[in-house]
Amino acid sequence: MKNTLGALRIDGARLWARLMEMARIGATAAGGCNRQALTDEDRQGRDLFIRWCREIGCEIRIDAMGNIFARRAGVKPTLPAVITGSHLDTQPTGGKFDGVYGVLAGLEVLHTLHQHKVQTEAALEVVVWTNEEGARFSPAMIGSGVWSGAFSLEYGHNCTDKAGFTIGEELERIGYAGTVAASPMPIAAAFEVHIEQGPILEAEGKVIGVVTGVQGIRWYDVIFHGEPCHAGPTPMRDRRDPVQALMYLCERLYGEVKAYSEEARITCGDLRAEPGSRNTVPEKVVLALDLRHPQSQGLEHLHRSLYRLAKQIQKTTGVTIDVREEWHSPPVKFNPHCIAAVASAAAELGYSHREIVSGAGHDSVYVSRVAPASMIFVPCAGGLSHNEAESAESVHLEAGANVLLHAMLERAGVVS
Amino acid sequence: MKNTLGALRIDGARLWARLMEMARIGATAAGGCNRQALTDEDRQGRDLFIRWCREIGCEIRIDAMGNIFARRAGVKPTLPAVITGSHLDTQPTGGKFDGVYGVLAGLEVLHTLHQHKVQTEAALEVVVWTNEEGARFSPAMIGSGVWSGAFSLEYGHNCTDKAGFTIGEELERIGYAGTVAASPMPIAAAFEVHIEQGPILEAEGKVIGVVTGVQGIRWYDVIFHGEPCHAGPTPMRDRRDPVQALMYLCERLYGEVKAYSEEARITCGDLRAEPGSRNTVPEKVVLALDLRHPQSQGLEHLHRSLYRLAKQIQKTTGVTIDVREEWHSPPVKFNPHCIAAVASAAAELGYSHREIVSGAGHDSVYVSRVAPASMIFVPCAGGLSHNEAESAESVHLEAGANVLLHAMLERAGVVS
Repeated sequence: MKNTLGALRIDGARLWARLMEMARIGATAAGGCNRQALTDEDRQGRDLFIRWCREIGCEIRIDAMGNIFARRAGVKPTLPAVITGSHLDTQPTGGKFDGVYGVLAGLEVLHTLHQHKVQTEAALEVVVWTNEEGARFSPAMIGSGVWSGAFSLEYGHNCTDKAGFTIGEELERIGYAGTVAASPMPIAAAFEVHIEQGPILEAEGKVIGVVTGVQGIRWYDVIFHGEPCHAGPTPMRDRRDPVQALMYLCERLYGEVKAYSEEARITCGDLRAEPGSRNTVPEKVVLALDLRHPQSQGLEHLHRSLYRLAKQIQKTTGVTIDVREEWHSPPVKFNPHCIAAVASAAAELGYSHREIVSGAGHDSVYVSRVAPASMIFVPCAGGLSHNEAESAESVHLEAGANVLLHAMLERAGVVS
Repeated sequence: MKNTLGALRIDGARLWARLMEMARIGATAAGGCNRQALTDEDRQGRDLFIRWCREIGCEIRIDAMGNIFARRAGVKPTLPAVITGSHLDTQPTGGKFDGVYGVLAGLEVLHTLHQHKVQTEAALEVVVWTNEEGARFSPAMIGSGVWSGAFSLEYGHNCTDKAGFTIGEELERIGYAGTVAASPMPIAAAFEVHIEQGPILEAEGKVIGVVTGVQGIRWYDVIFHGEPCHAGPTPMRDRRDPVQALMYLCERLYGEVKAYSEEARITCGDLRAEPGSRNTVPEKVVLALDLRHPQSQGLEHLHRSLYRLAKQIQKTTGVTIDVREEWHSPPVKFNPHCIAAVASAAAELGYSHREIVSGAGHDSVYVSRVAPASMIFVPCAGGLSHNEAESAESVHLEAGANVLLHAMLERAGVVS
């Protein structure tokens, strides 16, 4: 390896122990985590991370979106930093690894260098991005999104949860409304290590995924406006039933998405009827829809299918269908130098690996807009994620962190 | 008319004024009412009704289910009473007439007799039944249901709303936990006047519906247990998506219900996904389902279709479908003498009328288990009900109350 420290390895046992300690914050009965963004549990997780970083002498900065930057200085202060990071927030019924692994693997890289007294030319930073999941506050990845300039700070602060609390208020409440501007510093390279959240690496027996890009994602609220009426007397043909319209739309859209391509994805993550009384045809049904495809053209095709079907079904059912696009994250191609650094590190460490496109959105999508970036995947059991049963092998987590270590060193340069 | 007071009429203007006064309690911006069972608004409505009854000398009893009985004594205290009544609670986005009309028409009958100093042989009573709508507490018609012996008092008191409050607690809180046993007194005849909540009378230009019975109703919670996973990476073929199973089940069940008979009804009044995060395939979807048919055999057919389709779709999707029957109200045939009293009154008053089967459940379904009973319908605009835009013509409301007056007098006997 170019960095002359080819034999250096992170401490897999320490990484695992920290993952398990973090998982106790917001632990659920079913063995998962509920540590949603900017809750008291999120604060506890952030506090714990900062304590660990300070123990190895890192400097901490917190920006106006609550993003945390832990910095280990390099010997050449004018060089742009090499960064890594992910998120500590989870889904309501989330797992122990999604996001957290990327943060603690980054910490482990810094800890390993600290322990072995390795100096780098460029500074290294580990970042915790705010509200990656999008579960409590929509859209997802809002911390990295504002930081990268995709959204304004005002937009970020005004994102509101179902109970009416804003990100701005909740940052103040948990003490993480930082004073540093939420905008990029000079960056030489950015990496993020993450569980795959899909079945491919496991199915093929590969340890490392060299991530070349990320699927495009479009989010919609689809609102079906019907006519409330009594469940008994009104004949079926006289109804404008929003559930019927929902059902026709979903039935055809699922069919078209599946027929279009194996790579296409449709998810209806949330559904609700209003007023929600069993013996009244609902006035309104609201569907939260997520469409994905790795190519722009494919995603555009799914987008058009949705609008075309909504128009048709509106006509045949008399139910007004209001499709509101909430978020559009185009497909991403990562930086070739960063991809190469990951591939070389995996090869030189002797880990089996393959190129892979991420099906999930990640903070690296936004980071890649302002810095050379790429990602590293490790397998997770059954491809399960956003699930309390999410699990990963400690040997794979260790391997991913070693790849991260050597990719970062390669980009930062080691003082020999 | 047999009762020798053929020229007696209720005061349509007073009836209308009281309907409008009651509608101010829980009035919604869209012109409807939200006066759900055992809320502060329901208490205010009850208090107002009792005040009006006391003004005309009625005795008030409140039973252990909070049902209110306003009694105008007859000259022969040993005769069983002739009763009428309905409910004051509404849907969350309910109208001004559903239920309320039946209560205030009954009050108007007593007021008219009081004003004209007409004595009856049997006593007359007007009843307000608790939680007819089933919107806040499931099942519907629980006040008349417990009173008639269909449910135990304990079951009635333990019915719980979405916020976790029970009927027993809420009766105490609003001061309507009465001391009289919730069980039938001797009854000669029971009538209930109600807006049709369907389009038939209006479409045919008829003023009075002589109701011969009520559709059978079955309520279900259908719970779809899937496997949560991330919206991006997991290939469509590897998912166990409860929304897909919901959609297949609904699509086929709506089709079968509509194909089976014009009289059959299917309503999906409430839907929710858990945990309800846009980028996670839900773990669980819960559907509140209502099936109706006027014949037992027809209703049984729909019931079997539901279970058969759930079994098939469970097999094809891998989603576990748990169908729980929550309530079964078999079709009802009303008492021939009561039906005849309504038909004669309508004919002798010169109102156009036709026989009709109720598509909605009513308190009279339970009352008819323990007493001779029937109902009177009047048209409502567009057949709309369970809707803030529910409306009815004052002339039709007046006509219905006049039919109620004369049917009650015919059964109670007038002292000449």
